[in-house]
Amino acid sequence: MTNVQATHTDELHVKGKNARQAAAVLGGLHTTAKDEALKAISQGLLDNVPAILEANRADLEAGRRAGLSESLLDRLMLDEARINAMADALNDLTQLTDPVGQVLEDWERPNGLKLSTVRVPLGVVGIIYEARPNVTVDAAALCLKTGNAVILRGSSSAIHSNMALVSVIRSSLATAGLPEDAVQLVEDTSRETAARLFKMNDVLDVLIPRGSAKLIRTVVNQATVPVIETGAGNCHVYIDEAADKDMAISIAVNAKTQRPSVCNAAEKILIHQKWPHTAELVAALQWEGVVVHGDEAVNNLADGVLVASDEDWGLEYLDLEVAIKIVSSTEEAIAHINTYGTRHSEAIVTSSLADAKTFQLGVDAAAVYHNASTRFTDGFEFGFGAELGISTQKLHARGPMGLPALTSVKTLISGNGQCK
Amino acid sequence: MTNVQATHTDELHVKGKNARQAAAVLGGLHTTAKDEALKAISQGLLDNVPAILEANRADLEAGRRAGLSESLLDRLMLDEARINAMADALNDLTQLTDPVGQVLEDWERPNGLKLSTVRVPLGVVGIIYEARPNVTVDAAALCLKTGNAVILRGSSSAIHSNMALVSVIRSSLATAGLPEDAVQLVEDTSRETAARLFKMNDVLDVLIPRGSAKLIRTVVNQATVPVIETGAGNCHVYIDEAADKDMAISIAVNAKTQRPSVCNAAEKILIHQKWPHTAELVAALQWEGVVVHGDEAVNNLADGVLVASDEDWGLEYLDLEVAIKIVSSTEEAIAHINTYGTRHSEAIVTSSLADAKTFQLGVDAAAVYHNASTRFTDGFEFGFGAELGISTQKLHARGPMGLPALTSVKTLISGNGQCK
Repeated sequence: MTNVQATHTDELHVKGKNARQAAAVLGGLHTTAKDEALKAISQGLLDNVPAILEANRADLEAGRRAGLSESLLDRLMLDEARINAMADALNDLTQLTDPVGQVLEDWERPNGLKLSTVRVPLGVVGIIYEARPNVTVDAAALCLKTGNAVILRGSSSAIHSNMALVSVIRSSLATAGLPEDAVQLVEDTSRETAARLFKMNDVLDVLIPRGSAKLIRTVVNQATVPVIETGAGNCHVYIDEAADKDMAISIAVNAKTQRPSVCNAAEKILIHQKWPHTAELVAALQWEGVVVHGDEAVNNLADGVLVASDEDWGLEYLDLEVAIKIVSSTEEAIAHINTYGTRHSEAIVTSSLADAKTFQLGVDAAAVYHNASTRFTDGFEFGFGAELGISTQKLHARGPMGLPALTSVKTLISGNGQCK
Repeated sequence: MTNVQATHTDELHVKGKNARQAAAVLGGLHTTAKDEALKAISQGLLDNVPAILEANRADLEAGRRAGLSESLLDRLMLDEARINAMADALNDLTQLTDPVGQVLEDWERPNGLKLSTVRVPLGVVGIIYEARPNVTVDAAALCLKTGNAVILRGSSSAIHSNMALVSVIRSSLATAGLPEDAVQLVEDTSRETAARLFKMNDVLDVLIPRGSAKLIRTVVNQATVPVIETGAGNCHVYIDEAADKDMAISIAVNAKTQRPSVCNAAEKILIHQKWPHTAELVAALQWEGVVVHGDEAVNNLADGVLVASDEDWGLEYLDLEVAIKIVSSTEEAIAHINTYGTRHSEAIVTSSLADAKTFQLGVDAAAVYHNASTRFTDGFEFGFGAELGISTQKLHARGPMGLPALTSVKTLISGNGQCK
């Protein structure tokens, strides 16, 4: 075909149709069939390491020519260890409970109708993501485990790696007797095609963006398909008047520095005006290399602190950088967090159970901590055994999403001729 | 203000801010406070019948001048009986369990972290709807019961009625000691302002359209705020080879004729080729005044049947009109329904449990019936005691939505200094 527009149309059209057909088969599969396929894909990856690495080298070379940063190239890079980790994760997934088919409720009505609500797959899931090729395998595996067909749209910078991985996945699916079209990759990585994908309401039951705040914003603003938003984290640690000094400092430092580039890292610290250890906290953060911004009160208490501007309170630094503000009460801390926070993860450090309760009730966020680091907001840390992302929206799923987030429900009703 | 654009901006901006402040208060209220407010609103409506009817007359007169159809004028019309019904519904709502604060799960991790997931209000709910003024009271009440602030955007044809009703609601809220801004009406009913409302992601946690398929499509296509889609119903009754004659005819006739204008009415009947009573079924439908379309096989079996075109299979008639198709197997019926259905409500009539199971598993719909009419897909019929609409999407809520559909969750985590 020479007409580019037609080619775009055809790829999505054909893959959409294929996905719906595959979804109809996947929805009826037993857990064991899905788990066998996951094991087959795991083995397939191990058996095809050279081909995957060769494809990845093509992406890395193209990335270097295009001047990608070292950190982006690192995200893009696959080696034997990373492929082994993917293969292990696939096997781990077979150990998790399959949510599909679970009966959530059953009840009977006075007219004799018997109802039961059961979990079913969503159907066809769209995933749009950035450079990491491991998301290709991870997303495909989570969708397969939950009986969903998936249409993957990765970044153009990882196209060779993604094509190699999806080729292994599809041939492994065929080996396991499952429809290959359970997992499909959009090979045309143009923005126009992505924009069309966002509006394929007749094909996609949900679209999940995984990646930067910018990607997520684009999807939210353009998509007509329902979106599960995995969002930004402008997380706060609030140190109450009644906070133990060592605990407060260790939680604040951990939340800020343990992995500053992720969404559950703390970006702001609020301190009650009567907590007397602000200077020590600032010194402890600076010792760990953190650039500290602070309001006027913090500047009066500690050295080497940059003056925080109004803008700082809404920023997600994603780096060794923090802004600190002194507040006069738990209520002021809650109001500040509800104004500037992103409803992700918020923590209070206090020995007062009353203040902890006020904070946990009053703060509007997916996860609200008392005396623990915000860094625990994670599907594995929560014990879900898998993570699809962390939802910062309130519909369908909030916080770390495990396998049930990839399911919907269906109500089955049995009667003996009832009419209304 | 003379600048129209600025006025629009200000109304939504101010009401958005007010709604978020009210939501912060509502989220912390005890059930009794919310129930007292519902009772106060109920009494307020009864105390203000003349003022409400006067406002409604203004809408009716304007509607007549504008040439609205009699059926639209009837939807718009309020009388004492309808106001009494609204007041009763408010009192009924106080009898329902408040989902807010329910602990859905609690668990402990090996590191000693204690987690619990509790239901919380969504926050601020936007409702956009058409002429019926009773939706104003109904939507406000459901949101209040679940601790949500609501921004209502009704139709311009009902603006006087809606303003009168919201005025009563707000003064009753004030009487009950709750923030008036828990319930606000967008008084500027221009499309431009509606379009801006659809994109107020910083204010609205969800937007729920209630009304015609066209309204819902507009919202789905334009909104960037998460939408709960309450959609169309192209519902099928499949009469299996092993269907009892009387049961099949009574279910099909009930599903089609009991209230043809609603979304859970049957629009299509599929009949197994070996079921011998097609002619009688057609006659029974025609006796009830139903216009029957049929494929060639139906036309060969029964008289007075219009030839169904390919288009018919996807149509929602919402009238005394039906299309009938002969199929050769349950699998063909399932495939037809999954191609043309709207995933709302589907029924099989059969004495074969195996066929019923195949159908209930294979059909992709919110509610799948065995030996009962599709007309039972309804929050009250399901026993939920309230209904917010019937979701035909798969995220968050599917099928009839009760009060929990207006809630989200929050995870509370307690530790003793845990860091990752």
